Amino acid sequence: MQELAAQDGAEYLGLSTQQQFDLMAKAGWNEAGTREQAAVVNQLAEKYRIKIYPREIGGVPCYFLEPEHVLSKNRNRLLVHLHGGAYTGGGGSGASWEAIRVSAISQMRTVAIDYRMPPEFPYPAAIDDAMSVWRKLVQSNKSARLGVFGTSTGGAMTLLMVQRAKKERLPLPGAIFAGTPWADMSKTGDSYFTNAYVDNVTPTYEGGLQASALLYANGRDLKDPGLSPIYGDFTRFPPTLLVAGTRDLFLSNTVRVHVRLLESGTEAKLVVLEGQSHAQYLFSETAPESHFVINQVVNFMDRHLSR
Amino acid sequence: MQELAAQDGAEYLGLSTQQQFDLMAKAGWNEAGTREQAAVVNQLAEKYRIKIYPREIGGVPCYFLEPEHVLSKNRNRLLVHLHGGAYTGGGGSGASWEAIRVSAISQMRTVAIDYRMPPEFPYPAAIDDAMSVWRKLVQSNKSARLGVFGTSTGGAMTLLMVQRAKKERLPLPGAIFAGTPWADMSKTGDSYFTNAYVDNVTPTYEGGLQASALLYANGRDLKDPGLSPIYGDFTRFPPTLLVAGTRDLFLSNTVRVHVRLLESGTEAKLVVLEGQSHAQYLFSETAPESHFVINQVVNFMDRHLSR
Repeated sequence: MQELAAQDGAEYLGLSTQQQFDLMAKAGWNEAGTREQAAVVNQLAEKYRIKIYPREIGGVPCYFLEPEHVLSKNRNRLLVHLHGGAYTGGGGSGASWEAIRVSAISQMRTVAIDYRMPPEFPYPAAIDDAMSVWRKLVQSNKSARLGVFGTSTGGAMTLLMVQRAKKERLPLPGAIFAGTPWADMSKTGDSYFTNAYVDNVTPTYEGGLQASALLYANGRDLKDPGLSPIYGDFTRFPPTLLVAGTRDLFLSNTVRVHVRLLESGTEAKLVVLEGQSHAQYLFSETAPESHFVINQVVNFMDRHLSR
Repeated sequence: MQELAAQDGAEYLGLSTQQQFDLMAKAGWNEAGTREQAAVVNQLAEKYRIKIYPREIGGVPCYFLEPEHVLSKNRNRLLVHLHGGAYTGGGGSGASWEAIRVSAISQMRTVAIDYRMPPEFPYPAAIDDAMSVWRKLVQSNKSARLGVFGTSTGGAMTLLMVQRAKKERLPLPGAIFAGTPWADMSKTGDSYFTNAYVDNVTPTYEGGLQASALLYANGRDLKDPGLSPIYGDFTRFPPTLLVAGTRDLFLSNTVRVHVRLLESGTEAKLVVLEGQSHAQYLFSETAPESHFVINQVVNFMDRHLSR
């Protein structure tokens, strides 16, 4: 068992937002399952021969992933990872989960950011933490050698980081991967409707996503570009890889970002996986589709990051 | 009224395959609506200032499209177009319909092939005709200056042409565009199911597609690679642009081809349009999404075709 269970969200259906919050709190979602997560992460790290060191960067807790062999071309390269989990899960030791395979297969060092989350820390704590790490990293690294990536909420945060780095006139990463990004936190987008109950990872918007969105937004409009990057600026983006599935609740989130990037003249590559639900490549570690996605990420970073 | 009506296929539902054949024959689908089509095509040609000349190439009736101005960089370039219509429609004067906008906006000359169709001419007449034209064209043109494109059945035929040209050791086009291609004529693929009754151009496989497939196949297995290019060879393909929509019955046809091309190392670009049904960019001429697709095709050809 090397997988973190997908949360099907069925337990949230029919409950009020307050009841959903209570259920989340009862599940202790923030530190929740930390022990189980740690076991999964340790097993995966062992299998892929990755050493994981906790390290604080810019005042933010991170995990530093060191592959057994770092290719010489990757010596000065570094990947930065943002975990998924709807801003209400996936933190703690689980923060390095997705990064293990990418780090191992790319043979690149990776920093996984364990950003703060609700209920204690709603918007903008998570993205503020990501920016603190970025600000620190670009002080001592050429940004063209840095790649940023994440899936779902991590994919949205990857896009938000670039948008905010542009605003703050910080250097931009050499390439990014936004896997099926939560680009629109409001229920706007075709596949929130067409793929409802078709997606078997995140069957509905109402099944936990909405409550998480409201909890993180903390009263802000869900279409605020600080929350939903689709409403932000897509000019001057670095080369961007996007991945979704045909039965992905976030298919529209993904393709809307892709079209915006194409319109701005960005080198943006979209891959849509046959029959795959939201972020299924994370949950089905050994499926051919999952290998395909990880290889796409690795090749994309290798092609675009400076040495 | 500059649009050819989308066929919603509802009239075929619940009928036996034989009854569907009879209904198609009664509608006279092969020469069907020729007069209406001609009127639409003439109106569109006038609007986009395209002159259309019937011309036989390699013994096959074609339409030669001449834009008002041909850019000097396009003087030696030529586009080759294959119309859609499930091998049972879209022929005659309608064969040049999709090509008009592409030819006008690219300011490139275009040959639209009016290939033979069932019931008189089942497989392999259509693709044989396409190959006759190709064989003739590459005698007097550098193939790297030739781009091939089409939508739906035309997209599938574009892929089939490349596969057959490779087998026959003919030169390959410089670039191709396969718009939401009918890559699998059997009912295989996620979106035949997930987007049934969600797509409002081709709501179901059973609504006419299946009968057309059987009529064209003429007893052959629908998974024969001569019918369904997804089962063919995708190595050594020219740069390929693929387009589909989030509610497209052929979304899976499209993304399956894309992944095969990526696996073979081909430069393959996928664009998925938010909220769009199958080939909707053809039917909604003035929609922003349609302009976006035509511009994608034009830019892709311009980028990849030799001068």
